[in-house]
Order: sequence, then C-alpha cells, then structure tokens
Amino acid sequence: MTQFNDLDALRAAGLNLQAGSDSAAAAVRERQAILTKPPGSLGRLEDLAAWLARWQRRPMPRLDRVEVLVFAGNHGVTRQGVSPYPASVTVQMVANFSGGGAAINQIAGVAGAILRVIALDLENPTQDFTRAPAMDEAGFLQSVSTGHEAVSPDADLLCLGEMGIGNTTAAAAIAAALYGGGGGRWAGRGTGIDDAGLARKGSVIDAGLHRHAAVLADPLRVAMTFGGRELAAILGATLAARQHGIPVLLDGFVCTAAAAPLTRLRPDALDHAQLAHLSAEAGHRALAEALGLHPLLDFDMRLGEASAAALVVPLLRAAVACHTGMATFAEAAVDNRG
Amino acid sequence: MTQFNDLDALRAAGLNLQAGSDSAAAAVRERQAILTKPPGSLGRLEDLAAWLARWQRRPMPRLDRVEVLVFAGNHGVTRQGVSPYPASVTVQMVANFSGGGAAINQIAGVAGAILRVIALDLENPTQDFTRAPAMDEAGFLQSVSTGHEAVSPDADLLCLGEMGIGNTTAAAAIAAALYGGGGGRWAGRGTGIDDAGLARKGSVIDAGLHRHAAVLADPLRVAMTFGGRELAAILGATLAARQHGIPVLLDGFVCTAAAAPLTRLRPDALDHAQLAHLSAEAGHRALAEALGLHPLLDFDMRLGEASAAALVVPLLRAAVACHTGMATFAEAAVDNRG
Repeated sequence: MTQFNDLDALRAAGLNLQAGSDSAAAAVRERQAILTKPPGSLGRLEDLAAWLARWQRRPMPRLDRVEVLVFAGNHGVTRQGVSPYPASVTVQMVANFSGGGAAINQIAGVAGAILRVIALDLENPTQDFTRAPAMDEAGFLQSVSTGHEAVSPDADLLCLGEMGIGNTTAAAAIAAALYGGGGGRWAGRGTGIDDAGLARKGSVIDAGLHRHAAVLADPLRVAMTFGGRELAAILGATLAARQHGIPVLLDGFVCTAAAAPLTRLRPDALDHAQLAHLSAEAGHRALAEALGLHPLLDFDMRLGEASAAALVVPLLRAAVACHTGMATFAEAAVDNRG
Repeated sequence: MTQFNDLDALRAAGLNLQAGSDSAAAAVRERQAILTKPPGSLGRLEDLAAWLARWQRRPMPRLDRVEVLVFAGNHGVTRQGVSPYPASVTVQMVANFSGGGAAINQIAGVAGAILRVIALDLENPTQDFTRAPAMDEAGFLQSVSTGHEAVSPDADLLCLGEMGIGNTTAAAAIAAALYGGGGGRWAGRGTGIDDAGLARKGSVIDAGLHRHAAVLADPLRVAMTFGGRELAAILGATLAARQHGIPVLLDGFVCTAAAAPLTRLRPDALDHAQLAHLSAEAGHRALAEALGLHPLLDFDMRLGEASAAALVVPLLRAAVACHTGMATFAEAAVDNRG
C-alpha cells in the first residue's frame, strides 16, 4: 500500500501545500525587538528563529525532537563507471550506520538528534537510466510513500540525507533535466572520480537526457526516470514535513536535487526548507541559486548521509535558545537606545 | 602584580611563541585517510580536527573543557557620540550576563561551554583617545595580564569575546593604525549608529590617528593608545592560550582587532586561532583578509559577547566526534575505492 496511488495523486499533494504562520513569525520579530541586544544583531539566528516559528506554526519555536532520516538506494547507472567505489559499498555503509561507525552517527550525536536509516531495496538496483527509466511508476510511488511515511508527525525539525553509490549521477541528471545545460554543467566528482570518469559521467547524463527527452517537462517523471529510490523518498519526506508543519534541513547536492522537482509544481514548495550547506560537489552552487536557497554553511564537505544537515542543528538550537531564553531590556533593567 | 612588568617583557613574550605539533597534525591526516568516507569529503571538519590536534599537541583532539571568556570595558571615546547606546549599558549588560539573560548565556549553554565574564574597572572609563592615549603603560599591562591570567591552563578550547559600549570605535582605530586607510575605511555602524554618527566615528578615529602618529609603528603602543581594557585582555588571553597549547576561537570585529597587534610581532601569532564568524561590522572582512583568517561562519551577526565564537563550538565538537568516533574501512568491513 502506498500513500499515493498514481502520479496525479502525488501531483495534487504537491500543488496543495500548507502555508506557514505569518502571525507566529511576526510574534518572533516583535519579541526580538525587545531582547537585550541591538536590533538585528543576531543576524541569521534571528531569521532562523522566525523561520522555525513560521513553519512550526507556534510563536515560540522548539527543537525537542529533531530527526535525521537517511535513505539509501542502489543505482543501475553505476554499471556505466560513474563512481570510483563499487555499488557494494551502499549496503556496507548502511551496516556501518547501524553499527554507529559513520560520520552521521557522530554528528547526529552532537546534534542531539534521532537518527533513522531506511534502506530501499538495495539488492535490486534501479534501472540504468541510459537504457530505461530508473523506476516505473509503481516503484517510484512506493519510494515516495516510504519517505512520506517515515516522517514522524511530532518531529520539530527534519534533517534529510542519503547514501547511494552512483547517486550524484542521478542528482545531476535531475538538475540537468529541470534546469538545462546538459551533463557537463551538472556532473561533479562525487566521491572522487578522476577526469576520465567525470567526462564519462557527463556523457552518461547526456545519453539519459536524449533517451528520455519526452519526460523533461514533467518534474515528477523526471524524478522517476533519472532519480533513485532514496531521492524519491527524500521528495516524499519533504512533502510530508510540509503537511505536518515540520521545518526541513536539506543536506547537499543529492538531497537538494531530490527535492527540487517539487518546486516545479509550486515555486514555494521548499519555503519550509533551509539548505544546510553548500556542497563542494560541482553543481550545487548553481542548483542552490536556481532554487533561491541560501546555504547556512560552506565547509567544503561532500559526504552526504545528512552530515551537513545534522551539523547545523546546533546553530538552530542556538537560535531557539536565544529567542526563548534571553531577557528583555525591561526584565534585565538594561537601558535601550536613546 | 602583573604578568608583564613593561612593554618589552610583553614584546618578548609575543616574539617567543610555541609552535604547534606537526606530528599530531600528521597523525590526524593519516587516520582521516582510513575512516569510512571518501578522502577529504568532510572538508573543513577534517581541517579543524587537524588544527585542534596541532595546537593541543595531541593526535586525538578533545573538547572536554571549553571556556568562553568575555571581557568588559568602558571607553572614554563614547563622549564623542560614537554609539547610540549610553555607556551605562556596559555594566548593565555585565549584570545581564550574571543573571543569565544575554545571548552568550544561551549560546554557551548550547555549546556546553563554561562562561566567565571579567569586568575591567568599568567605573573608570579609559581616556578619550582623541585627547590622550586610552591607557597608560601600567594600565595597559594590567589589563593584558588580567586577560593572560584568566585563561585556565587545562582548557581544551578558548572562545574570546567582549562587551563595551564604544569599542567598535577602538577596534576600528587599531585596524586603521595597523593597516592604514583612515577612519572611513574601518568605522562601521557598531550597535547601529546613524549616518551622521558613522561620519563622526570616522572623524574621531582620524583625529586619534593624527594625535598619536608617533605610536603607529609600534603595535603594542597602538593597542595601548586606541584600545580598551577588554581589548588588551583579549590580546593577553590570546597569548596565554598559545603558551598553554589551547586553540582559540576569535569572535568578531572587536575581538579580531584586539588580537591583531600580536601578528605585527610575529606573522604566525594567530596560527592557533580560528575566526569564528565574518561580522556584519563594516571593517571585518578587510581585517580578516589582512590577517589571512577564513571565517567559519557568515551569519550576518554583529553582537560581540563571544556569541559567534560560542556558536561554532558544536561544529568543532562534530569535527572531533567524527575523528575519534568513526570506524575505519577495515573495522566496518566497507570496501575502499578500487
């Protein structure tokens, strides 16, 4: 059973989005004006407090329950030689997540976040998109629904990430399909492919774009044709978070590309999301700019696994702590400006 | 009693700096190469782990004891109308720190850091530097020594910050004295001065530079003449941290300007420091560039109080957690690249 019976049901959900709460955001701004600091001097921390309030739809935002969801998938396109790592690494890394040995385990611990890893049919890679659509409609909707259902309705913040050898190729293909420019514009080195591999990756994407030219105008078919299961799940989870009133932190290039098709249904589809980090992956800056997302951090990271999303959680905790914990000028008997 | 009996003793300390540990940093890089991630994919987190190890002089860095020191001082130059807030706010904000109501209280809490606030003779502002040196030699060395002695030798990381109405004027004057360009290049809006005030601030700095032209070639006399007690204390604390093997996080414009004179004694004097944040204060970008410091965060903040330094502590905790907690490829039985 899936959340969405057909593409039209998913499309309808993507078109029918909840708005944030203007009044909650306004209440945050009013309180910020009387806290013991010069107006606006906490900069983006103030913006983040207002953003959290808007999408949590409460005037005092909170981060009691922060969830990190990492979706994992395997990609038929790896047979084209687009990654320096064998596809076997995806399942091995999922085991590493379970054993607590990956970067995201450590970073989620620092963030005080609950980590859940959801492996999506790893033993059956998606189709190689140079030969066929990566997923059929039923398979795509199944993965979208898995992502949708993985979101706890009572979470206060959702960090999204992925693991999947080959998935920067899928992500670059989605970006190329949505924004043009071909494989050369969007292919990057991923986990560290060499020059020859990078050129091959661009050609593989171009071959996919050529084969599937008929779907390029339909953002959900783009996600189905070029994406992977973990990307589809991220799309579903992003949509679920909007429906549940949960702000989202997007991780890096793959995660951003996975959510991007939603903005072709509605331009405001990612207003409840912040981009955690500007990835070192080649296409991320252009993709972030196309989406109007302003990354919180620029740490030259390119790991995925929701590592950057979890990394910025303490910055949001600081935003909330300042907003809820600071004294007002009156409470602290501090003179305000003349 | 002070740590430094005269300027020459302080100068000698500033010239005789400990190096970091190349072997500790190399050990970090060796371990990073076998952790379960593509090489270099944690970007700046990897650099930060190596930097912490280098200056802590141990191959496995730790952040068990993180200290935040906020120094507070009052400035005679406030009588020139360089701030929209009355000088009375400095002592009121120190009380707010004690009461737990300021931004730094909340952010230090999120950071898991110990916060100490050290008020420096607030009832006796420094001299107005347009008329006389801000401090005499004894007073300057007293403040430097207070800062030096405030550093716990067993701290694993030191976050430095300040509070002092008028101190962006002092900081801009130091920057102008060290790097040229006059008041117009370095004066910013501080807590939010209007256009007329900003122009006045630039003129006040130029008047100080003109009056004290004879000291401009001597970085310690620059700090004494234009700085404040809290800036002198930051200089002393930065030096003490180097001597004790404690990495430092510098906060914003004032904190950076306070430490800058040390680099005129030795260009490598701030190698044990990272700049936490690029302040929204006008002169900070140029000052950071002049010092070769690459800010970790750009959050449009301009509060001081060590707020940005404490804000980035969790990012360093993540760097350490990844370095010490991740599994190697062998431990996790993950295939490495072919």
